[in-house]
Amino acid sequence: MRRTVKILVVWLLLILSGSPLSGAERDPLPSWNDGASKKSIVDFVERVTHDGGPDYVKLEERIATFDHDGTLWAEQPMYFQIAFAMDRVRALAPKHPDWKTKQPFKAVLDRDINALAALGETGFLKIMAVTHTGMTTADFTKIVADWIATARHPRFDRLYTDLVYQPMLELLSFLRANGFKTFIVSGGGVEFMRVFTERVYGIPPEQVVGSSGVVRFKLPPDGKPVLLKEGKIDFVDDGPGKPVGINRFIGRRPIFAFGNSDGDQQMLEWTAAGSGARFMGLVHHTDAEREWAYDRKSYVGRLDKALDEANAKGWTVTNMKTEWKKIFSFEP
Amino acid sequence: MRRTVKILVVWLLLILSGSPLSGAERDPLPSWNDGASKKSIVDFVERVTHDGGPDYVKLEERIATFDHDGTLWAEQPMYFQIAFAMDRVRALAPKHPDWKTKQPFKAVLDRDINALAALGETGFLKIMAVTHTGMTTADFTKIVADWIATARHPRFDRLYTDLVYQPMLELLSFLRANGFKTFIVSGGGVEFMRVFTERVYGIPPEQVVGSSGVVRFKLPPDGKPVLLKEGKIDFVDDGPGKPVGINRFIGRRPIFAFGNSDGDQQMLEWTAAGSGARFMGLVHHTDAEREWAYDRKSYVGRLDKALDEANAKGWTVTNMKTEWKKIFSFEP
Repeated sequence: MRRTVKILVVWLLLILSGSPLSGAERDPLPSWNDGASKKSIVDFVERVTHDGGPDYVKLEERIATFDHDGTLWAEQPMYFQIAFAMDRVRALAPKHPDWKTKQPFKAVLDRDINALAALGETGFLKIMAVTHTGMTTADFTKIVADWIATARHPRFDRLYTDLVYQPMLELLSFLRANGFKTFIVSGGGVEFMRVFTERVYGIPPEQVVGSSGVVRFKLPPDGKPVLLKEGKIDFVDDGPGKPVGINRFIGRRPIFAFGNSDGDQQMLEWTAAGSGARFMGLVHHTDAEREWAYDRKSYVGRLDKALDEANAKGWTVTNMKTEWKKIFSFEP
Repeated sequence: MRRTVKILVVWLLLILSGSPLSGAERDPLPSWNDGASKKSIVDFVERVTHDGGPDYVKLEERIATFDHDGTLWAEQPMYFQIAFAMDRVRALAPKHPDWKTKQPFKAVLDRDINALAALGETGFLKIMAVTHTGMTTADFTKIVADWIATARHPRFDRLYTDLVYQPMLELLSFLRANGFKTFIVSGGGVEFMRVFTERVYGIPPEQVVGSSGVVRFKLPPDGKPVLLKEGKIDFVDDGPGKPVGINRFIGRRPIFAFGNSDGDQQMLEWTAAGSGARFMGLVHHTDAEREWAYDRKSYVGRLDKALDEANAKGWTVTNMKTEWKKIFSFEP
């Protein structure tokens, strides 16, 4: 009897799959205009998921990697993690009265961007050291969680997590609905991103690859172990570091990769070099009105060599202004 | 009409769940005797999956980490990756006639274990360098794949992958069937293990954490990028390195961890230090007849301090001899 019921269920499920109720006919990418990018995405996904077709890719090999800053959320006027570091310096300043006259902290407290820029990498590393190290991983997570829940972007006066790109959220969901495992592969700090990637993108911590500092296990006398964030860079997941990070953390070559800057060029090259169907995409920031317009000369998110390579090799370049109906979900 | 059909399906599925056909009454761990370990495992899984219960853990937090050597497969008379390196030296020897008289290679070619041991870490690192570096990641994968498909264990005259523990395969499946994500966290080389972990354990490459060497992205003039394995150690995923590796790769604290040696002590401590229900387990190698018996004085897989801590804290210690009906699947 129960066996009969089970067979009935399987039979009904077979009837239902492919029916209008299964949602196959709804547009999975409603914020994308029907342009070249949307077509190339949908075509690619259809090809690799068509069982029996020449480009079919089995489930476990459907790895998609996304850069973060400028690809999944905005990155202007500065990477949001830098904004976090600046806010953190200001929050810590009352405990460090000497910072009022000591660089690079003085420049941050005075909001003197030119002075800060003049201090270069050395100044930047000092700021990162006092804001990102010398504490446990648990403490850092708490600090980031508090910041991301309250800090507001200067131009939009909104939470930073409101500045994720609606079309990319749809793309992530579309890929996952087609059996892809979606990863972030970013030059940003892995422990910074992991605080919110699951909630915001549906990407769990174990699918976030990023830059990291040295962390040390410590078992204090009271017996409760901690992980301490130390003041030394461990891995920079940018440029040629991205294929290295992909190899180290994922251990498989992506078949789909999306970036927006020269820092993503090697990830796209590494993706392109595999056999079978491949998708390489770049977000081109072309909309100064709704977002920002920048590419070859930008200090943040420069897109120059990778744009040339994309054009030469026929990779997908998404023109934000013309191809995205909506950039942020809060747009009317 | 179709809506009616869908409701009917859901209703039938509800009836079926919990029925004998769903398999809930079959023993998920048939190779485990009904001893303390099996009870502690089943109790733990029931508690954390009991929706509404005090120890319920939501799906995404169900992270289980397993050591590899001595926990999922055997590790005597030497770690199997060392056996691979030795075989590889012998395979490469014809191209290096000087190795016949040059240490540490001479010791390997002469199968002189004492001479090899006397050469210590320096000798070991030289062997690892010639067998694990100076090639692309793709070449290394091919070499390991060929070896693992053909090399035979000296005592059992079987493939090394035949020496995985049947009870642990059942445990991995049981956890996954209960929504756990299973990871390997091993001192072994990550690129060595990833060649076969998906086929053998159902654990995909992106869920394998291990030791690694420095890898460099290179784009040769012909335009096909490669990743080169260089002769420098990047990360040692052993002892206090295991919580660090877990933090770096997974970014969440496990609620379930299984090891077998002092190299797993910090992983278990880190697991234990989280809030809520926790499972910490150790395989105790007590069966010299079917496998090996060793613990406090063994050079390979020493279990001494971790055993004391397990006993003191009530962690699960699995007595291989009395608790495992079957160790290897090939046993009668």
